[in-house]
Amino acid sequence: MRKVYTPATAAVGGEEVLRLIEGRWKLIILFHLFGGRVQRYSEFVKLIPGISQKMLAQQLRQLEADGIVARKVYPQVPPKVEYRLTEWGQSLCPALDALLAWAEQRDSLVNPAQQGAAADAAERPR
Amino acid sequence: MRKVYTPATAAVGGEEVLRLIEGRWKLIILFHLFGGRVQRYSEFVKLIPGISQKMLAQQLRQLEADGIVARKVYPQVPPKVEYRLTEWGQSLCPALDALLAWAEQRDSLVNPAQQGAAADAAERPR
Repeated sequence: MRKVYTPATAAVGGEEVLRLIEGRWKLIILFHLFGGRVQRYSEFVKLIPGISQKMLAQQLRQLEADGIVARKVYPQVPPKVEYRLTEWGQSLCPALDALLAWAEQRDSLVNPAQQGAAADAAERPR
Repeated sequence: MRKVYTPATAAVGGEEVLRLIEGRWKLIILFHLFGGRVQRYSEFVKLIPGISQKMLAQQLRQLEADGIVARKVYPQVPPKVEYRLTEWGQSLCPALDALLAWAEQRDSLVNPAQQGAAADAAERPR
């Protein structure tokens, strides 16, 4: 059963969700894992140009602590470490896709008159 | 037709979307406008405890500049100003709701073993 929200509790809930995924690095890590993909640490380093090793490790640790990413260590030498999404992390994909689809609608739905010509609008006949 | 993304362009797009809505104030303003509701400036002041007039005006201006909120000024004395969502702003509602629904699934889907006992997990028989 879905939770019932007031505008205030929905805003707090929304803010908590956004905090889990905000920042370009987390999103790019997520988009490299959606679809059930599995990546090794060294693969992320190649896939994400510009990320420092420290930043990558930190973002992966946060995603893991939040229950979005699962880390699997194979006890071998040198150790092999794999990352994949948890079931919950995987279910974020359609929600993020809905946000991207919303952004794409902008050009067709936003009336240019609403984007700064509010003063003119008041003078036009309706 | 939907845009085609690489992980990198999806991350950039996602970051841009999150920037449009981030912050508790914007979300609470949005949740007071979803469902076609119309609010006057003075109503927001009452509905959102803790927000300063300066912050409220700034957040509304940003939402208006981004094409999410529409502002209507009635030429009367004193001026009456109404805020509502644009059609595009209104269509954000299902996407935000999908994010809240995702957050709600956390308890049922996140295996506690994935939340910090990764070292133990490697030792358990599979």
